[in-house]
Amino acid sequence: MQTDTSFEAFFSPKSVAIIGASEKLRFGYFVTKSILARTDMKVYPVHIHADQIMGVKAYKSINDVPDSVDLAIFLVPSEAAPNAMRECAEKGVKHVIVLSAGFAEVDQVGAQRQQEIVEIANKNGIRVIGPNCVGVTNLSNRFTTAEIDINSLKEGNVAFIAQSGIFGTVIIDWAAANEFGLSKVITLGNKCDVDEIDLLNYLEKDEETKVICLYLEGIKEGRGRKFIETFERVTKKKPVLVLKSGRTETGARAVKSHTGSLAGDDRIFDAVLKQTGAIRVDSVEELLDFAKVLATQPLPEVEGVAIITNSGSLAAMTCDELEKQGMKLAQFESETMEKMKKVAPYWTSIKNPVDIGPAMLQIGSQVLEAVLKDKNVGCLFIISSPPGMVVKPHGMGLDLVPFYKVYKRVIDKHREKTIIISSFGDHDIIKAAREVFEKSGIPLINSVQNAARAITTLYRYKRYLEKNNKNQES
Amino acid sequence: MQTDTSFEAFFSPKSVAIIGASEKLRFGYFVTKSILARTDMKVYPVHIHADQIMGVKAYKSINDVPDSVDLAIFLVPSEAAPNAMRECAEKGVKHVIVLSAGFAEVDQVGAQRQQEIVEIANKNGIRVIGPNCVGVTNLSNRFTTAEIDINSLKEGNVAFIAQSGIFGTVIIDWAAANEFGLSKVITLGNKCDVDEIDLLNYLEKDEETKVICLYLEGIKEGRGRKFIETFERVTKKKPVLVLKSGRTETGARAVKSHTGSLAGDDRIFDAVLKQTGAIRVDSVEELLDFAKVLATQPLPEVEGVAIITNSGSLAAMTCDELEKQGMKLAQFESETMEKMKKVAPYWTSIKNPVDIGPAMLQIGSQVLEAVLKDKNVGCLFIISSPPGMVVKPHGMGLDLVPFYKVYKRVIDKHREKTIIISSFGDHDIIKAAREVFEKSGIPLINSVQNAARAITTLYRYKRYLEKNNKNQES
Repeated sequence: MQTDTSFEAFFSPKSVAIIGASEKLRFGYFVTKSILARTDMKVYPVHIHADQIMGVKAYKSINDVPDSVDLAIFLVPSEAAPNAMRECAEKGVKHVIVLSAGFAEVDQVGAQRQQEIVEIANKNGIRVIGPNCVGVTNLSNRFTTAEIDINSLKEGNVAFIAQSGIFGTVIIDWAAANEFGLSKVITLGNKCDVDEIDLLNYLEKDEETKVICLYLEGIKEGRGRKFIETFERVTKKKPVLVLKSGRTETGARAVKSHTGSLAGDDRIFDAVLKQTGAIRVDSVEELLDFAKVLATQPLPEVEGVAIITNSGSLAAMTCDELEKQGMKLAQFESETMEKMKKVAPYWTSIKNPVDIGPAMLQIGSQVLEAVLKDKNVGCLFIISSPPGMVVKPHGMGLDLVPFYKVYKRVIDKHREKTIIISSFGDHDIIKAAREVFEKSGIPLINSVQNAARAITTLYRYKRYLEKNNKNQES
Repeated sequence: MQTDTSFEAFFSPKSVAIIGASEKLRFGYFVTKSILARTDMKVYPVHIHADQIMGVKAYKSINDVPDSVDLAIFLVPSEAAPNAMRECAEKGVKHVIVLSAGFAEVDQVGAQRQQEIVEIANKNGIRVIGPNCVGVTNLSNRFTTAEIDINSLKEGNVAFIAQSGIFGTVIIDWAAANEFGLSKVITLGNKCDVDEIDLLNYLEKDEETKVICLYLEGIKEGRGRKFIETFERVTKKKPVLVLKSGRTETGARAVKSHTGSLAGDDRIFDAVLKQTGAIRVDSVEELLDFAKVLATQPLPEVEGVAIITNSGSLAAMTCDELEKQGMKLAQFESETMEKMKKVAPYWTSIKNPVDIGPAMLQIGSQVLEAVLKDKNVGCLFIISSPPGMVVKPHGMGLDLVPFYKVYKRVIDKHREKTIIISSFGDHDIIKAAREVFEKSGIPLINSVQNAARAITTLYRYKRYLEKNNKNQES
């Protein structure tokens, strides 16, 4: 077993061999193409029958490469994988990503091949990611073994570990489409060697990663104790969000035929996970929403939540979800109420939730300022969903951006508080919120229920850290 | 109390008076403008100080209008409302929509004014929608009293009843942006007279409405028994989806200051609602997703759900949610398995969920055909989330539309089954699914959990109808 830092070679190799490099438009073509184009690392295509791949000199075997190799990427069919692994061992390669499928997830023959490559790897101190995966994506140097458009991705501080290649790719596509900032994405596939525990060890120390997201179908046999130890340690430094399927019998059968994983008893998994301080989520949407808030916002210092809204209905639904989750609304200081009374029209409701309806655009910033200064407020949730006619050219034709920029100036003075915005309805209305808030790291969450659950998650995580720090001090 | 058919005047009046018509860009301006522009109804602006409004002759009082008036729309301030109502009574108007605010939702004075207009209305057989609302929107004749762009809306068969004006408007904006088909939208505001029960009576017989959605903050005192009777009757003809806030203490306080409603004990409300056969939902997202599926899909004849997917992970999550909801996956007939075996590559998994990964584009239509012909399948859920590189110009550059059109031809032969599609990830990927499927009435639901819950909802509603029909027959 290598030290964690050795994992750097998976993400920032200085020299890479692509074994089974392909210049035909089939599996591996885009990986070959994107890595061959890199100028910041040496890339050696290896192909048994080719002298050149995409104009670059190719080698019959990795052993012909006139240089040391940090990372070998396998694109060869599963039957050729054991031999390729043997050659990697001879060459002294220590990091291999097997992108090819056709192993344990398919049949007994595939399982034997997988067993074979693992044995060679273990004997020679080679760490292996895969097989049946899309490997790694590193935003800081834009290195990827996945078939994605890395340039469309935004660099951020959320790391994502997925088991399945397609799901990992789809999450990356989603992130690109929604300007969601990622640090690293790793798909584990069949987890013949490297698993989520190894990656948690690595990401724990990764300075580019602030939040760790994990989609899991099962834990490898015999790794239970290590899982608990690692998760317990890492969650005290960085929040770890876990989405696990195979919770039910039907789901467990589905994951078994998907990645061959044993989902295990969900009640036990759930109890174990709670004990480790990891945060379990119920859907992809929750995972992404919670990660966005954790990645951009400080944890709330006090429990009280304030809501400023233009829609009483959406605020009422938020209140319901907050109470369901066990959270409390902030009791405003009298000074806060006084300040709001001075600017709010008589027909608004300035108790918490502060429902100022159509007056939101006019007095929003003053109300924001008053509420953010209130020491009983740990988190502010802003619901700004004005009618589309406010911005339409044939309506009032207002540009929301300047209004929102005034809000933002107020918010910027109080970045020590947790702040989330929600906007719903017309596309242009949502677009303005995205442009001003989301782009400045104030997360936009469409669903008010998810926002309420995200707030709860942050508050509970804060409490978890406090409790743990106290234990450490005493 | 009038008969239900009299409600037609709210939605399709032949003559309308706008009391307090405004040609200034303030509250009421857009309503005045859009209704004055209509050529299919006579419109009479009424304003105490104006001879003309937007070039149309104005009247000092509704009593000066030289014609009968089906519907009067109040834009006057609350203090002028009682007098306007008195004049409507003299004129013999039977339908009034009070858009103005400043009544019971604000203070005691407002509450008294509201009481005053109700008394005049009751004495004179006038039905009143509002106050503090945005009134009605009717897609069939594109008549609206709301400040929305009616032309951007798609006509469909979902009716929406909301309590609050802003929320109703935002839902309409959302529907316009997402091409969600609506039949009628009604906001009730303070419900001084017309309430959800009256509207359910009306919508029960409305041929344009197939699904009724209701956002509710409370039920008027003394209307409990009538609520149960009406809901029990209507749910046997059309599905009624209910989103109610004020479920918790905090939520109840929020609705009280929002529309002055008494939320009541949620456990009682929940039990009552269940008894009536109405379907309770937990979020706006669920409401809209369920409505879309109910509006476009037949109810499943048998329980078995089939899943065809390119992502094993998303399928596993769907399985978990289905089992959590108490639903069962279909056990395929052996013939179905044989048909799939003939076309599916060896590495795919053709048990249910049918996980055909990247082979989906090639063999999707054959697998679809086999599964849809299986008599154990009541509902088919298709998860098609291929990686973005499949469609990107610098990737494989495929156009998904022709592939999806082949799927659609197969689906069109089996419209007797419930069919839902989910697509996640890249914008262009989702766009293709929207273009082919959603536009032909095959609903696209992004969240697999919501899709699983929608399927459950349809199956349970089917069972509810069957049970009820049996009771009626016996």
